[in-house]
Amino acid sequence: MKKLINNPTKVVEEMIEGYVKAYPKHVRQLAENERALVTAKATREGKVGVLIGGGSGHEPAFIGYVGDGMADGVAVGNIFASPPPDPILEATKAIDKGEGVIYVYGNYAGDVMNFGMAAELADLESGIRVGSVLVTDDVASAPKAEKEKRRGIAGEFFVTKVAGAAADKGYNLDDVVRVAQKANDYTRTMGVGLTPCSLPQTGKPSFELAENEMEIGLGHHGEPGIEKGELQPADQVVDRLVNDILTDMPIDLGEKVAVLVNGLGSTTNMELYIMFRRVEQILSEKGIEIHRSYVGSYSTSLEMGGASVTITRLDEELAAFVDHPADCPMYVQK
Amino acid sequence: MKKLINNPTKVVEEMIEGYVKAYPKHVRQLAENERALVTAKATREGKVGVLIGGGSGHEPAFIGYVGDGMADGVAVGNIFASPPPDPILEATKAIDKGEGVIYVYGNYAGDVMNFGMAAELADLESGIRVGSVLVTDDVASAPKAEKEKRRGIAGEFFVTKVAGAAADKGYNLDDVVRVAQKANDYTRTMGVGLTPCSLPQTGKPSFELAENEMEIGLGHHGEPGIEKGELQPADQVVDRLVNDILTDMPIDLGEKVAVLVNGLGSTTNMELYIMFRRVEQILSEKGIEIHRSYVGSYSTSLEMGGASVTITRLDEELAAFVDHPADCPMYVQK
Repeated sequence: MKKLINNPTKVVEEMIEGYVKAYPKHVRQLAENERALVTAKATREGKVGVLIGGGSGHEPAFIGYVGDGMADGVAVGNIFASPPPDPILEATKAIDKGEGVIYVYGNYAGDVMNFGMAAELADLESGIRVGSVLVTDDVASAPKAEKEKRRGIAGEFFVTKVAGAAADKGYNLDDVVRVAQKANDYTRTMGVGLTPCSLPQTGKPSFELAENEMEIGLGHHGEPGIEKGELQPADQVVDRLVNDILTDMPIDLGEKVAVLVNGLGSTTNMELYIMFRRVEQILSEKGIEIHRSYVGSYSTSLEMGGASVTITRLDEELAAFVDHPADCPMYVQK
Repeated sequence: MKKLINNPTKVVEEMIEGYVKAYPKHVRQLAENERALVTAKATREGKVGVLIGGGSGHEPAFIGYVGDGMADGVAVGNIFASPPPDPILEATKAIDKGEGVIYVYGNYAGDVMNFGMAAELADLESGIRVGSVLVTDDVASAPKAEKEKRRGIAGEFFVTKVAGAAADKGYNLDDVVRVAQKANDYTRTMGVGLTPCSLPQTGKPSFELAENEMEIGLGHHGEPGIEKGELQPADQVVDRLVNDILTDMPIDLGEKVAVLVNGLGSTTNMELYIMFRRVEQILSEKGIEIHRSYVGSYSTSLEMGGASVTITRLDEELAAFVDHPADCPMYVQK
């Protein structure tokens, strides 16, 4: 597949360089480790630090979500690969202001190992207290009884939003961890894949689907989904995705939710709005109130085709965090 | 090509329905015409109205740019087709507060005809004064001596930003038109196409390029560009695009500019950041100051692959408009 890149082995370095040059008022690269970015302004004294990260290729996640009211730092891995402990550790040191740091990241073996190791080192080397919330929103990736085995996908946006807002409001580490964990517990995502992406170094498609085929539950790195079948009209696809979410996480009449209809890369905004239309119809019929909507490509898999629906139940506490202002290069909320 | 849609003849209606449901605090559909959207809050008394519009398929343009500090209304055409005079006229009436309305739209025959007709009708039927600025930023679409024949592409974002900010600051119609015209005069875009999109109704690719081919200057609706050739590394592509811009519009050492690296649909943010990196290197070497950067898919051609570089020269007046706050569903600036 054609890509506008230079040396395929340097795409992450060059991406970071371009990103930091584009948004110098928002982010800076750490001198100690070029794969660690932090807010250009120093983290406020007395504030819990919020650190995110994971593999590249999901832009605007995760680098795009560093800024006021969201994350203080991000550790950047190679494409679809966890960052090693080093950038995580250096970013931790840079954003800790004595109140500790929360790690919010997707539940993947490599990330669990490397963020875990960095947390230990941060404690040992610098006495920094680290709390962690692993995002496990992908309904398709494990049965309900084993939610802790599920992968993290687009729902990381909401968990980051809540952690960032709570930290910005002055919550202490235990409370930031508590509300971020609640945000994860209250969040479910179901996706559908249509067309593959290709890694810059191989140029080969990440999976194969026939010309009129879709795959329900396909993972963000091409992990197999739960069902392949003929591509259905958008309304039927959305019915299936939302039904799987609501079966897994029942939502009562009158409850408030936040909704994200997320594009995986090459899916147009037009399609995402059409999908949102159906999500809104379903929820409205059930008397569920959409408190805030997000439609766009918030977490991608390079140029993969497809989309996901994320629903987060909002109690009063979470609703206030979702409404809290934010100012990141790729996401601003007044 | 696979699409997450329902009835291909209803995509625009369903997209608008989803969009308005997603952002009810920002936009509303006019009862008088379902292809006309205006800000949910009424246009402020005494403010010049700003109306944008054009074909669909360029989302987030143009519907995403209705909101505080940007446009007051948008007329929505079919995919890649001008809206008819009706929605333009109805939106004009809805946003006029006695100070007149500025139309900002791309220079395409259909748009010129329909916006022109709507302007006449607005005057005849309601005595509304309309000023128009046609965006002509696409360097590749006509020679420099015939700039008025050029098409409007991604640079419409800057012209809309400037018109919206000037109107928000209380400028009168003549002055809003003057500064929006200056923004257009000071804006140039050059793009490159890699892969086609397909219209929902036909499913057929909009043009053909070989597997390792790119087309410089390809239009936003698949209009032929100025040169086909083998795909080059990103730096060489950017060198070409920026060189064509600077040859057409020389920029002096010490001048300020705004830069937009825009994705056409399926091009990843990673590639856009890598392209921005090179734009920054070139401008920085020439002593040109990037006052503000924008990297992302601001104006697309459905799922087309490719990108464009837009540069707007900023004098003090234009820089202040670019910095003015905005609050649209798809673009927020604090």
